[in-house]
Amino acid sequence: MNAPHHTMPESSSAFPLDRWYVVGFSWELTDKPIARTILGHPLVLFRMAEKPVALEDRCCHKSLPLSLGALEEGGLRCGYHGLLFGEDGACKDIPGQANIPCEARVRAYEIRERDQILWIWFGSSEHPAPQAEPPGYWVHSDPQYKFRGDVFHFEAPYQLVHDNLLDLSHLGYVHLRTIGGNARIHMEADMKVEQEGETIRVTRYMRDSEPPPTYTAARPFSGNVDRWQEIDFRVTHLLIWAGAVEPGSDSLSDPNRGGFHIRGFHGVTPETETSTHYFWTVATNPHPDMQDVTEIVRSQSELTFQEDKIVIEAQYRNMLRFSGASTVDVHVDVGPNRARRIIDRLCVKQRC
Amino acid sequence: MNAPHHTMPESSSAFPLDRWYVVGFSWELTDKPIARTILGHPLVLFRMAEKPVALEDRCCHKSLPLSLGALEEGGLRCGYHGLLFGEDGACKDIPGQANIPCEARVRAYEIRERDQILWIWFGSSEHPAPQAEPPGYWVHSDPQYKFRGDVFHFEAPYQLVHDNLLDLSHLGYVHLRTIGGNARIHMEADMKVEQEGETIRVTRYMRDSEPPPTYTAARPFSGNVDRWQEIDFRVTHLLIWAGAVEPGSDSLSDPNRGGFHIRGFHGVTPETETSTHYFWTVATNPHPDMQDVTEIVRSQSELTFQEDKIVIEAQYRNMLRFSGASTVDVHVDVGPNRARRIIDRLCVKQRC
Amino acid sequence: MNAPHHTMPESSSAFPLDRWYVVGFSWELTDKPIARTILGHPLVLFRMAEKPVALEDRCCHKSLPLSLGALEEGGLRCGYHGLLFGEDGACKDIPGQANIPCEARVRAYEIRERDQILWIWFGSSEHPAPQAEPPGYWVHSDPQYKFRGDVFHFEAPYQLVHDNLLDLSHLGYVHLRTIGGNARIHMEADMKVEQEGETIRVTRYMRDSEPPPTYTAARPFSGNVDRWQEIDFRVTHLLIWAGAVEPGSDSLSDPNRGGFHIRGFHGVTPETETSTHYFWTVATNPHPDMQDVTEIVRSQSELTFQEDKIVIEAQYRNMLRFSGASTVDVHVDVGPNRARRIIDRLCVKQRC
Repeated sequence: MNAPHHTMPESSSAFPLDRWYVVGFSWELTDKPIARTILGHPLVLFRMAEKPVALEDRCCHKSLPLSLGALEEGGLRCGYHGLLFGEDGACKDIPGQANIPCEARVRAYEIRERDQILWIWFGSSEHPAPQAEPPGYWVHSDPQYKFRGDVFHFEAPYQLVHDNLLDLSHLGYVHLRTIGGNARIHMEADMKVEQEGETIRVTRYMRDSEPPPTYTAARPFSGNVDRWQEIDFRVTHLLIWAGAVEPGSDSLSDPNRGGFHIRGFHGVTPETETSTHYFWTVATNPHPDMQDVTEIVRSQSELTFQEDKIVIEAQYRNMLRFSGASTVDVHVDVGPNRARRIIDRLCVKQRC
Repeated sequence: MNAPHHTMPESSSAFPLDRWYVVGFSWELTDKPIARTILGHPLVLFRMAEKPVALEDRCCHKSLPLSLGALEEGGLRCGYHGLLFGEDGACKDIPGQANIPCEARVRAYEIRERDQILWIWFGSSEHPAPQAEPPGYWVHSDPQYKFRGDVFHFEAPYQLVHDNLLDLSHLGYVHLRTIGGNARIHMEADMKVEQEGETIRVTRYMRDSEPPPTYTAARPFSGNVDRWQEIDFRVTHLLIWAGAVEPGSDSLSDPNRGGFHIRGFHGVTPETETSTHYFWTVATNPHPDMQDVTEIVRSQSELTFQEDKIVIEAQYRNMLRFSGASTVDVHVDVGPNRARRIIDRLCVKQRC
Repeated sequence: MNAPHHTMPESSSAFPLDRWYVVGFSWELTDKPIARTILGHPLVLFRMAEKPVALEDRCCHKSLPLSLGALEEGGLRCGYHGLLFGEDGACKDIPGQANIPCEARVRAYEIRERDQILWIWFGSSEHPAPQAEPPGYWVHSDPQYKFRGDVFHFEAPYQLVHDNLLDLSHLGYVHLRTIGGNARIHMEADMKVEQEGETIRVTRYMRDSEPPPTYTAARPFSGNVDRWQEIDFRVTHLLIWAGAVEPGSDSLSDPNRGGFHIRGFHGVTPETETSTHYFWTVATNPHPDMQDVTEIVRSQSELTFQEDKIVIEAQYRNMLRFSGASTVDVHVDVGPNRARRIIDRLCVKQRC
């Protein structure tokens, strides 16, 4: 793609640049273009000749959002005067006019599709073009897993979503109706926080504890289980692996351990400095002789994330009301605070 | 009327002054006062002794909008403490108080009624009083025409409505469901743009073309027709004459030509710098032996203008999102660009 | 209570300080905490060990509104990570953490309950602690009276509500459907305005006038009556006493006069500089042989205050549209203007 690469606006220093952000899922691109703002950039997304395309969502003629236009084989046709744009952002047709001026083009963005996740590159002026391919996500392609997912929108800055996902101690208070269970067990679980460069791993083990109903439906557990929650933070997304094995049967630190698994993918992409897209999937490993609980886990996750949305948005509105008020840290903030330091350092580096 | 004439606020330089703007239609003034903001001035409109009245929409006592008050024979009575205002804006009654201070008055505006159109004068400090009477519109009074109309509101600056009306090439993309027809025919029609002082005429001829269904219902056309669209731009309003004759029967430039006519009146009045009132009527000339299609044309026009509203408001919101982004002109912009130059010149002159 | 006393924000100089404001009614505190902003301070209100508590509505950990939390015996538990706060604002429990840092506390406000009215102290830096107890309201406790009430919210500054309550001449225009009656009678009634320090009394007598239907239902009046309206203004609330006696039977100035009474309590508490809480009750003195009209008076009052809300909010929006426009005073403004001078003087004094 030879689209012109603009430098980012000043405001982008609020986000780590030079990396891939999740912009959508493969199944979202159908016969209609999608409007989605990412890191402050209004985009139109569509599929053309089976490949995803991301363009600036503004016709260069009269500024109508191209997302109001119509898809055809040659590209996306504007809904006002019919200008046609291809995957590189160049105008290919101006109805009633033979000559197409070379300024008639819109910005095209680097977009990739891997394992049903759509990634978009947001580079700095130093690295406008991708420096590597986006990460794969093997769970979406592994036949032993089944997954479902959706896109949520939060009226809150993305770092509040990081805080929420990196500290699952809130389960007992926010998610009483769904995955919460006994609040004290969550708050008092063994917790380990490890960091390696730009990644953080928060591990929580709850050994010899009673399995939740979903777990016993999905696996023939006979009594208590050894449970784990592993949260991997990666700047633009998090992987959360929860599950349980028969007590003592597998080491909770063995990456190939068996048992019942729930694997969550969580793409946390800033829409603007004060709003966030949340792209999530949950996968389970069905057992041939047991109930497939993927749909149950999906609907419970949906409820759970809706509860998170209420809390996070209320939290942000209150932060604005009490602007500048001081806060007190507690033991569960170790993981979230490390993530904030990583993001802060990346943003500061960009400003220099 | 001897109401005090104030000078316009600074912000008014965004609008050409010293001219009549459409403020409403005769049939809107019934037994209730109407609130309507014009060029940034909140007004209350009502009829008194059969004549239209336009006052500042604020009681001089406690600032309640007078449009919340009640009409009686002597004028408009405020809905808070009952002060009564006549057509010149002077207070005529303060319940419970004998003496009426001379400051107890609100601004009255020059308003006229002609051919069922209500016009209001917005003068500069140089010309606070009207320099001429408002234009007539003979179509509303001519017995060979029947018309219907309505008032729409756009959350967009008035010049985007001018652009839309002066360039009918958008018909094929915006109005697919109604008057659009074949997009290419509209984009590739013969177009002529003429200017004379502050008026512009855009003429488009589509000779020997298939008539739309409404046309064949209204007139006994036997096959193809010669069609025309004539757009007359006049700073505060546009007249659009469309129609068709039997091929070769009348010259398309003969002002007295026969055939089937649709005559549109389009009053485009700024509400504020970022919102617009759109006063429209459509008239047809019923044939004694054929169906009267006035109501069909009205309902199609209504749908059409609703489609325009969606496009124009989306366009404006996108212009704000992409503030300062450059645009590319195409062939159909000749008419709209001339209108913009006329408006710009008038606004600049005022600032000097 | 030994909560830390902060100094008020700058903006508070728009409100008279060092006094008790109404913050609610006793019956509002049930099993759920209440969020309510008073003088710009977002508060959470709840009852603990039968006593009312008012805390800053922000958890000191992650800023979630405490009003989203859950009440338990020991206090209010935050809905995010479960921190527990007692009536003095100190954190009493951090789940999963033994040590509670002493900064883990939120501001607690002085709140009192008297005669079913909840009062909150808003002090200046000079008088952060209450200088006296809040006023009682004997009507709520007197067995000869029955009362009902509610809380309304106005999107308008509190002084516009004072204006409205201190000048009942608007009854004939705003409240035509309910308590209005003949507009002229209200506008032309005998009116007396007395001031003593920070209190104002507006008295209106309508002697030998026809009683409204509610009055004749509640008392065996045989013909015309002597009616009165007494408005007592007290900076943070107003007491309005209306009623009627048989003509000549009691002096209209006798504080122990009989007849039919409607006693209104009107707590007018700024929410912010541009919005207001309106806490009202109406009480009547039922006659053993006649209909109890308390519920009729309550529902009429509710309708009336809804009409006032429409007028006051429209007035305020119009004041913003016509910012800086001059106004004209009339005879009924004497009471309201005195109240404004009292408030202005108190606010100016604070700024010095």
